[in-house]
Amino acid sequence: MNDKSTALPGQLNISPRLLLGPGPGDVHQRVLTAMATPLLGHLDPQFLTIMNETQEMLRLAFQTKNLLTFPISATGMAGMESCVVNLIEPGDRMVVCINGFFGGRIAEIAERAGAVVTRLEAPWGQVFEPNVIRDFLKKVRPKVLAIVQAETSTGAWQPVEELGKLCHEFDALLLVDAVTALGCVPLHLDAWEIDAVYSCSQKGLSCPPGLSPVSFSKRAVEAINRRKTKVQSWYLDVTLLQKYWGAERFYHHTAPITMIYAIREGLRLLLEEGLEARWTRHMRNYRALKAGLLALGLEYSAAGGHQLPQLNAVKIPAGVDDVSVRKHLLSEFGIEIGGGLGDFKGKVWRIGLMGHNSRPNCVLEVLAALEQCLQNQRYVFEAGGGVAAANYQYNGSGEPQATACTSPTAPR
Amino acid sequence: MNDKSTALPGQLNISPRLLLGPGPGDVHQRVLTAMATPLLGHLDPQFLTIMNETQEMLRLAFQTKNLLTFPISATGMAGMESCVVNLIEPGDRMVVCINGFFGGRIAEIAERAGAVVTRLEAPWGQVFEPNVIRDFLKKVRPKVLAIVQAETSTGAWQPVEELGKLCHEFDALLLVDAVTALGCVPLHLDAWEIDAVYSCSQKGLSCPPGLSPVSFSKRAVEAINRRKTKVQSWYLDVTLLQKYWGAERFYHHTAPITMIYAIREGLRLLLEEGLEARWTRHMRNYRALKAGLLALGLEYSAAGGHQLPQLNAVKIPAGVDDVSVRKHLLSEFGIEIGGGLGDFKGKVWRIGLMGHNSRPNCVLEVLAALEQCLQNQRYVFEAGGGVAAANYQYNGSGEPQATACTSPTAPR
Repeated sequence: MNDKSTALPGQLNISPRLLLGPGPGDVHQRVLTAMATPLLGHLDPQFLTIMNETQEMLRLAFQTKNLLTFPISATGMAGMESCVVNLIEPGDRMVVCINGFFGGRIAEIAERAGAVVTRLEAPWGQVFEPNVIRDFLKKVRPKVLAIVQAETSTGAWQPVEELGKLCHEFDALLLVDAVTALGCVPLHLDAWEIDAVYSCSQKGLSCPPGLSPVSFSKRAVEAINRRKTKVQSWYLDVTLLQKYWGAERFYHHTAPITMIYAIREGLRLLLEEGLEARWTRHMRNYRALKAGLLALGLEYSAAGGHQLPQLNAVKIPAGVDDVSVRKHLLSEFGIEIGGGLGDFKGKVWRIGLMGHNSRPNCVLEVLAALEQCLQNQRYVFEAGGGVAAANYQYNGSGEPQATACTSPTAPR
Repeated sequence: MNDKSTALPGQLNISPRLLLGPGPGDVHQRVLTAMATPLLGHLDPQFLTIMNETQEMLRLAFQTKNLLTFPISATGMAGMESCVVNLIEPGDRMVVCINGFFGGRIAEIAERAGAVVTRLEAPWGQVFEPNVIRDFLKKVRPKVLAIVQAETSTGAWQPVEELGKLCHEFDALLLVDAVTALGCVPLHLDAWEIDAVYSCSQKGLSCPPGLSPVSFSKRAVEAINRRKTKVQSWYLDVTLLQKYWGAERFYHHTAPITMIYAIREGLRLLLEEGLEARWTRHMRNYRALKAGLLALGLEYSAAGGHQLPQLNAVKIPAGVDDVSVRKHLLSEFGIEIGGGLGDFKGKVWRIGLMGHNSRPNCVLEVLAALEQCLQNQRYVFEAGGGVAAANYQYNGSGEPQATACTSPTAPR
């Protein structure tokens, strides 16, 4: 084998992109700049300060005082696995609410951890009513109930504010998937009595993928302390990780220094803006995008009143070719939107306006480009209708409506 | 809780460092520049090309044709866990060779995976002789034998070239920890019949921590395919990961895009230089550093003939205060060296010359600074002796010797 190949790949040379899919979104320039900072050692006193600052800001972002709050050194799915394997011992009962792709994944991971899983299912795009959850808690009496706040596969926004109290009535712990929620929509760990949560770096926080912020309540920590068996994963064992992130600074693994620089800057951006202002911004741009999408004749896949502002999943109209449209968007405009996942493969597009990318120019750009793609597909509507509707929404007020344009006709 | 704190941490503002500990080392400027590249989506055709290029270069770096070769999306310790949990099913026998901190860690992770572990121990700083390993293979008949090629805690360089054949005589798989080896010292996966290996991004490859390159031989893959139970970790299940990194591109998790940019550049740097040239450079700078350290009266903790060029562990002389010296190095010179780990805590210093940092200026700088620190500690030797011995070595030839200077006296 030739170790000094003459055909090595060249310098990184990529075409510009606007990332409006389900994540990653574009990284904020301040985050990129922070990542160009030379490394510190992972036990350098300066780095320990950075770790503390990151944890403190993460607590604010999650609205919690939980001591056990830090980013797992891997992507969001490792955060999911970390929450599951720390809370679950083989034989423990767990209810997993499944109304999309990621609920199903929690169940799969829980089974690998030895949980006895009860699946509470709802149609994709729907959300769960508290009384249905209550029935399952009563019937199953699980140790943990898991639910996805922001289902990235369907765009459904699950209300979770009442579920902590409900779970605690039945002595269950509430585990919430906030991968697509953090930094986009309200999330109040302490007030909502959430016991364990995981998120990611590449969506609401506008950092590259690679970290998964987690947080565990006092109740969750007590459950972990009562374990009779060791956590099956050494890498994801939060009791060991706490000794590294906490005052002891006990060496566990080498923290991904540059990614910590990144999330620290992403959290600074979030808190400088303010959580309320951030959430309001996401709603404003969602309303404009929605007005435009409706004007283009597109229909949301998530139930009305439960649509995520940061993840707009719309049904692909009959006769329109999924892949052609997304390829055209990418090659002609450099715009990435997401295709469907699992049951929704080929059936929906997912347009993300997350963190830094929840901006009017992203809204107008994707609507204008999508219009061209749909015209290419001979799916007909009034020219400029999407952009006009979005602008009307930005300049006016009220709920998004399709009335600014004539409705599209069926594809012909 | 106030979400818009007036006391947010400021912009990242760190003092310059020269990282000469056990890793991370300093990141090469070309890697930092690559990391400032805007994101691509993780399923973008351009990114899929980058993934392929990264895998191809990683195969060259590991000197293997193994299909199952890619970076795990987490740090080196997750690579360790990934190798263990994929190869081991509950009840499987495993021999773990322990002559330092990291061997012990493999055993701990293997036990969490349900392995029946037999510990083959040697004093810290020593290496294992093949006949001892043969005896254990014969006696235990394990499914897997694990050994550390470059023990970062002791600086011992374990020969592994004959161990693959030896393990295969007894139908065992050979698992090698190459965390500190890759990109620094020879490693020939195929020629040496290594079945599974893991490494990291922040040592020989001069990238930030955050990725763990792994590779599995055909024999290992067959063993994985014969498993009767699912791999306990979903995140680290290489059968699922192979579908993501392979032709199927089956969504598993969101790849840490920016870290992949980084390792691609780190691998380009390695292969542009050439593996042989890289290994020779590490030996050359090691010889100079060693000459200098001996001239300062310091003694290596690893056995002669088995010292890693990239990780120089030396005993802290009696009467010299570990922490004071390292603090002085850091505050006065911005130089980080490593303290001892586990049994060697407070007993050794670890000086790393890894990848980009295996350079004459690093050697001379650390020797000059260390001399000042040792003088501060009233540990006496001929002034300038360390630097002089290193320069003599650079300009001359032969094995490092302390004869260029008078030997230091005992501390007084």
